[in-house]
Amino acid sequence: MSPVFVPAQLLERLCAEIGTSNVIADDQGLDLISRTCIPYRELPGVGVFPINVEQVQAVVRLAGEFDVPVWPVSTGKNWGYGEKSACYPGGITMVLERMTRIWHVDEELAYAVVEPGVTYKQLNDYLKENHPSLWADVAGTTQYASVIGNALDKGRGLTPYADHFNAMCGMDVVLADGSLLQTGGGPVDGNQCRHVYKWGLGPYLDGVFAQSNLGIVVKSGVWLMPAPESFDWAVFEYTGAVGQFPQLIDDLRRLVFAGAVRARPHIANDFAMMCIVSQYPYAALDGKRCLSDEAMASWRKKHGVARWTFGCGLYGTAAEVRFQRRYLRRVLGRYGRVQFLGVAAEDTLLGRLARKVAPFINRMMGKSDAFMEALVPGINLFKGIPTDHFARQVYFKSHQEKPRQNIDPARDQCGFLWIGPVVPFTSGHVMAALKLAKEIFDRHEFDMFVELIVEGPRSMIMLLGVFYERNDPDDAARARGWYEETRFSFIAKGYPPYRTTTMSMPGSSDINPVSRDFLAAIKRAVDTQNLIAPGRYGTPGRGGRAAE
Amino acid sequence: MSPVFVPAQLLERLCAEIGTSNVIADDQGLDLISRTCIPYRELPGVGVFPINVEQVQAVVRLAGEFDVPVWPVSTGKNWGYGEKSACYPGGITMVLERMTRIWHVDEELAYAVVEPGVTYKQLNDYLKENHPSLWADVAGTTQYASVIGNALDKGRGLTPYADHFNAMCGMDVVLADGSLLQTGGGPVDGNQCRHVYKWGLGPYLDGVFAQSNLGIVVKSGVWLMPAPESFDWAVFEYTGAVGQFPQLIDDLRRLVFAGAVRARPHIANDFAMMCIVSQYPYAALDGKRCLSDEAMASWRKKHGVARWTFGCGLYGTAAEVRFQRRYLRRVLGRYGRVQFLGVAAEDTLLGRLARKVAPFINRMMGKSDAFMEALVPGINLFKGIPTDHFARQVYFKSHQEKPRQNIDPARDQCGFLWIGPVVPFTSGHVMAALKLAKEIFDRHEFDMFVELIVEGPRSMIMLLGVFYERNDPDDAARARGWYEETRFSFIAKGYPPYRTTTMSMPGSSDINPVSRDFLAAIKRAVDTQNLIAPGRYGTPGRGGRAAE
Repeated sequence: MSPVFVPAQLLERLCAEIGTSNVIADDQGLDLISRTCIPYRELPGVGVFPINVEQVQAVVRLAGEFDVPVWPVSTGKNWGYGEKSACYPGGITMVLERMTRIWHVDEELAYAVVEPGVTYKQLNDYLKENHPSLWADVAGTTQYASVIGNALDKGRGLTPYADHFNAMCGMDVVLADGSLLQTGGGPVDGNQCRHVYKWGLGPYLDGVFAQSNLGIVVKSGVWLMPAPESFDWAVFEYTGAVGQFPQLIDDLRRLVFAGAVRARPHIANDFAMMCIVSQYPYAALDGKRCLSDEAMASWRKKHGVARWTFGCGLYGTAAEVRFQRRYLRRVLGRYGRVQFLGVAAEDTLLGRLARKVAPFINRMMGKSDAFMEALVPGINLFKGIPTDHFARQVYFKSHQEKPRQNIDPARDQCGFLWIGPVVPFTSGHVMAALKLAKEIFDRHEFDMFVELIVEGPRSMIMLLGVFYERNDPDDAARARGWYEETRFSFIAKGYPPYRTTTMSMPGSSDINPVSRDFLAAIKRAVDTQNLIAPGRYGTPGRGGRAAE
Repeated sequence: MSPVFVPAQLLERLCAEIGTSNVIADDQGLDLISRTCIPYRELPGVGVFPINVEQVQAVVRLAGEFDVPVWPVSTGKNWGYGEKSACYPGGITMVLERMTRIWHVDEELAYAVVEPGVTYKQLNDYLKENHPSLWADVAGTTQYASVIGNALDKGRGLTPYADHFNAMCGMDVVLADGSLLQTGGGPVDGNQCRHVYKWGLGPYLDGVFAQSNLGIVVKSGVWLMPAPESFDWAVFEYTGAVGQFPQLIDDLRRLVFAGAVRARPHIANDFAMMCIVSQYPYAALDGKRCLSDEAMASWRKKHGVARWTFGCGLYGTAAEVRFQRRYLRRVLGRYGRVQFLGVAAEDTLLGRLARKVAPFINRMMGKSDAFMEALVPGINLFKGIPTDHFARQVYFKSHQEKPRQNIDPARDQCGFLWIGPVVPFTSGHVMAALKLAKEIFDRHEFDMFVELIVEGPRSMIMLLGVFYERNDPDDAARARGWYEETRFSFIAKGYPPYRTTTMSMPGSSDINPVSRDFLAAIKRAVDTQNLIAPGRYGTPGRGGRAAE
């Protein structure tokens, strides 16, 4: 575990430039920062934790001088996608979690300017304290994830501002030669518009830094949502016949187009809900590696979980929210049960009362008590309030109990893996994709986890996942087999994933050779030594296992 | 006027490859395609009109073989910004107006896939005939402008889909080596998502082809708007005290944030409205070069024009439109007169009645009859129905009468020039920018034309323009002086323009040197001979007047 790819002299220079406390080179430290949930992992030669832009620039310049690659991550909480591991062994891993400045919040124009170490929790706390009229959309993952990191990976939240990359506007980017690029057009200093107008003057550049290795984003504008006058929250449980589900998909698309659904719900299947409200029922496996339909049905029944469930925030004036409520009740009511429970998260007398009464109703409805625990955090996600409640679910199979705090599934070696093919938002496409997914889950004997994420009115991201034994090589191989078959089969059907894991970087752009070559030419031009994250998203590597 | 920069052999080969009828090299033809409204113009060596992708590729390959640059335009109807003229003399001008295929319209997912020669009129006619439930946003310019061309220049419309570049999704782009890049991630063939999910897999590439010379966009997905259940149209006239105007700006921002204003109105000052409803009152000039405040006031009064006017579409269910109406009446009513006239464009008994009655009311309100003529086209713009009615305004000073049809101000040598600085959407910024604009108009003795374009809740584009004598060198110099001072003064205040004219390409990226150099490196990498539109948006030229 020695830092094989990092010369001793570079280590010294790094310590001199950014301070010994911001450099990690001991075995234990390197082990910790390279732990993953996915069945793939590489050890870096050294880990650096720069605290400001100048330090990022200093590291990049040193990397160039010693010709050693730099793998930047924000906080590396992209659990199930690759965490902090590079796609090659050795080199410098740069963790930006100590760059935690909130530079500016503009209340009138509703945006913040933040560094990559700013987490959902930090931003939310800051807003609640100083600008309570503004909400920041958050991902359903841990509250300690990076706002910028998630956005650059095209992560998603749940409010009308769910498209995190779309909410970025005006970035500061350290390039491979150490220079600082400020996007958003106009003069570098004094430009009043870089964080309020997206497209700038000339080509729009922010886009090329998403899922990219063309530079290191060290600061960005992030659009915030003015708190609506009124808010409510619906929970929908599907009780219709199986054959009705396609119709629900088409109706839901129309609701999104019409603006009756402004939130971006995740429609969870039964298994995805079970992860939240239960522990894995190993006893029901009956010698198999995944639950039979019967075992699944009885487990579902025990906890009162529907086949499909989703929550949905309602936003607007009181009149608009009333209208949305009516509209949702009318349309969704055809397919199942819709309840409006926004009040339960309110800090009012009515809210406290609702929280008192809810557990009894919940039990009467035959539901597991864990539903109640999820209620307030679930509602809050739609108000931009982050939580670790749902990140805990990933412990449900690998650990006997979900931890109450200090969640870190990479550290704790929970094995899981995500893939999210993009699927056009029509019943035809969604049903075809669900069928394909089910076949592949069955073939690899994994329980089917799926969330249909409403990306917008035109597409869904079909989030699929498996849980496996992180430290059992056979099970890891099985998970990888499932992943690769899912990936290639969905691509072959025309549904490429919205994101790729670190283990699948090599060749991930081969599905579009002209685009791959176009990007490779750009990379060579702006990073002549191929210093920053070589190989990321299928760009050329530098040698080593994952290269070329 | 001979094609100095194009060797005879290239001309022959072009004719052989794409057909003589698609090549123009005679003096008259070259003169016609290079006429401009801006005070700048270059003659190309040859004009080509490819009819399909293969022809575009053939021209680019020939250009490479002969090392001659290609200046691509869609239909070149970007009047007042540069039309079809290159920013250097000679070379090949490529006009894509004969690529007029509508490849596909998806009614469920609300998008079209079109070629650059498809005009607003063609797309709208096609939709009305085949998919009446879909609306395509249109620019206020001529109905014969290119949907793709306007979007690539970041042009604007008026409906909720006003951000034309934002509505592009998934492009086919011919690169400088003649290869065809298909953006939108995934496999080239069979990808079901390229036109429904914007960000693709890996870096987002569409953005680098906006206001760009990195490739020639030959096809693109364009998102369409499902026709709302209900529609209405408000016209607002400002009658408040001058000191109230800043408050209106802040209130308007709140209306846009709240979604009570979903359209993207253009708030026209008195002069901008006068262009529409009147001819220029030369008699009132009184020996000066622009109207005095008194002359302006009396002209305004004669036609019943307010200091500020805008139209605004209302969209949604009947209940939502009612709500928007109430909200607009309450807020805008503080500052002036709001009327809801959507019915006047309806093909119903009530609509016909309204159109019958309106002229009388109009006259009673002391308004010029020309208001009535503008009413229905004005409402229709907010329904995505294009018109030449407003493009006619640019004739109002250079010609005695506005033509009724066959509008082509470049051919007809109307002199005018636009610049649109981006300004944050707060009263502080907008008032500072208006003051600055007024000073510069006054200094150059031009009447102040301004439209405050609601770009979104966070920014406005302050469209400023002048009308001058196209063929009077002194007046052209005055227009250019006004333009350059406006441009530099606004940049210095932090309000860079959203778009630049062809005459101002050289140096237009110097306001951000790191970004300029980053783009120049990319350009060198993907267009090694600098073939496509050298010099566009401040990228390096190839020599000649506008180069370097």
